[in-house]
Amino acid sequence: MMNGSFITVEGPEGAGKSTVLAVLAKRLEEDGVPVVITREPGGIKIAEQIREVILHTENTEMDERTEALLYAAARRQHLVEKVLPALREGKVVLCDRFIDSSLAYQGKGRGIGMDAIEEINAFAIEDHMPDLTLYFDIEPEEGLKRINQHKGREVNRLDLESVGFHHKVREGYLELVNKYPNRIQVVDASRSVTAVADAAYDIVKGFLQKRTV
Amino acid sequence: MMNGSFITVEGPEGAGKSTVLAVLAKRLEEDGVPVVITREPGGIKIAEQIREVILHTENTEMDERTEALLYAAARRQHLVEKVLPALREGKVVLCDRFIDSSLAYQGKGRGIGMDAIEEINAFAIEDHMPDLTLYFDIEPEEGLKRINQHKGREVNRLDLESVGFHHKVREGYLELVNKYPNRIQVVDASRSVTAVADAAYDIVKGFLQKRTV
Repeated sequence: MMNGSFITVEGPEGAGKSTVLAVLAKRLEEDGVPVVITREPGGIKIAEQIREVILHTENTEMDERTEALLYAAARRQHLVEKVLPALREGKVVLCDRFIDSSLAYQGKGRGIGMDAIEEINAFAIEDHMPDLTLYFDIEPEEGLKRINQHKGREVNRLDLESVGFHHKVREGYLELVNKYPNRIQVVDASRSVTAVADAAYDIVKGFLQKRTV
Repeated sequence: MMNGSFITVEGPEGAGKSTVLAVLAKRLEEDGVPVVITREPGGIKIAEQIREVILHTENTEMDERTEALLYAAARRQHLVEKVLPALREGKVVLCDRFIDSSLAYQGKGRGIGMDAIEEINAFAIEDHMPDLTLYFDIEPEEGLKRINQHKGREVNRLDLESVGFHHKVREGYLELVNKYPNRIQVVDASRSVTAVADAAYDIVKGFLQKRTV
């Protein structure tokens, strides 16, 4: 029996997910909501070991499907060891990226196909889909600009080449929004951190209030 | 375009797979057949790294589905880096264990379900199913007895406890034999190595002759 709420946050880098998540968690805690913030691999030893294999710079021969299976494996272990125990304790789990990232980035962005990625992830998460997902939507050009400003450098050739990839990823996310209109709520992430955090807070509060009615 | 033949050998430990495979490869080579013997992870760096995560003795908290996804990931990389290139060169690839092992051991033996295991493995291998599979069939009690004789010790309590598991695995293999009667050929592995090797050789030769007609 799960009493907690499993909330995931999705969107590209540069959409401000982690900053907003920290603000959101603080406001929920001030309201007396028991919150756990996490992201894969989340300090789970086996998931960390899997991430090492994925991210090892020498593994340039890594096949895209191998990588997708490794992400699903790390997701499974993080879910079992960290997310589910917290939900059983009645916590609100805020997870930075989950299944929708794999669907958008690997399924759509890399072109493996969203259905194929959904199958292996359904195996990994079984029926533990998020109860609510906030999708931080932003134009890829705007997101990339923010990342580069953050790094204190100009947009370079490599960033521009990858804009096409990021457009496909966004297309994938928007398909998911259409497919799961109840689960996934779109947040316009082109606004200020404060405005985005306010919007995220309102959605989560509304969701939690409906749940406890 | 694949010109080679992908042949897998399946069955429990103690069925004599590796011994017979070596004899079989030698006889095929003497006939002028270009043979590659392999088994996962097959010296493929990424697959070896994944195996390390699976087999690390400290990873006792490993979830069964995480493990199944990791096996599928290692399989994918071994297939892409070693099996497919050899098939493209027209080789006969003899692979000790492949998808059927996961179906029998994890799907049936561990009880995850053969359909679920088939889905993630179908993602991993796409349409590269073996052209021919030799299933070395032996009563679990007989297989375990052989392993223990080999180790020079008596059957112990632990071995006896696991007989039930090995019966389920065999049940899984026999279901696969029924499901894929053309692909999977049963070899009675309770006989001597010479007799089993002869039987395996006859099946493989017959298969290769039909292919080249």
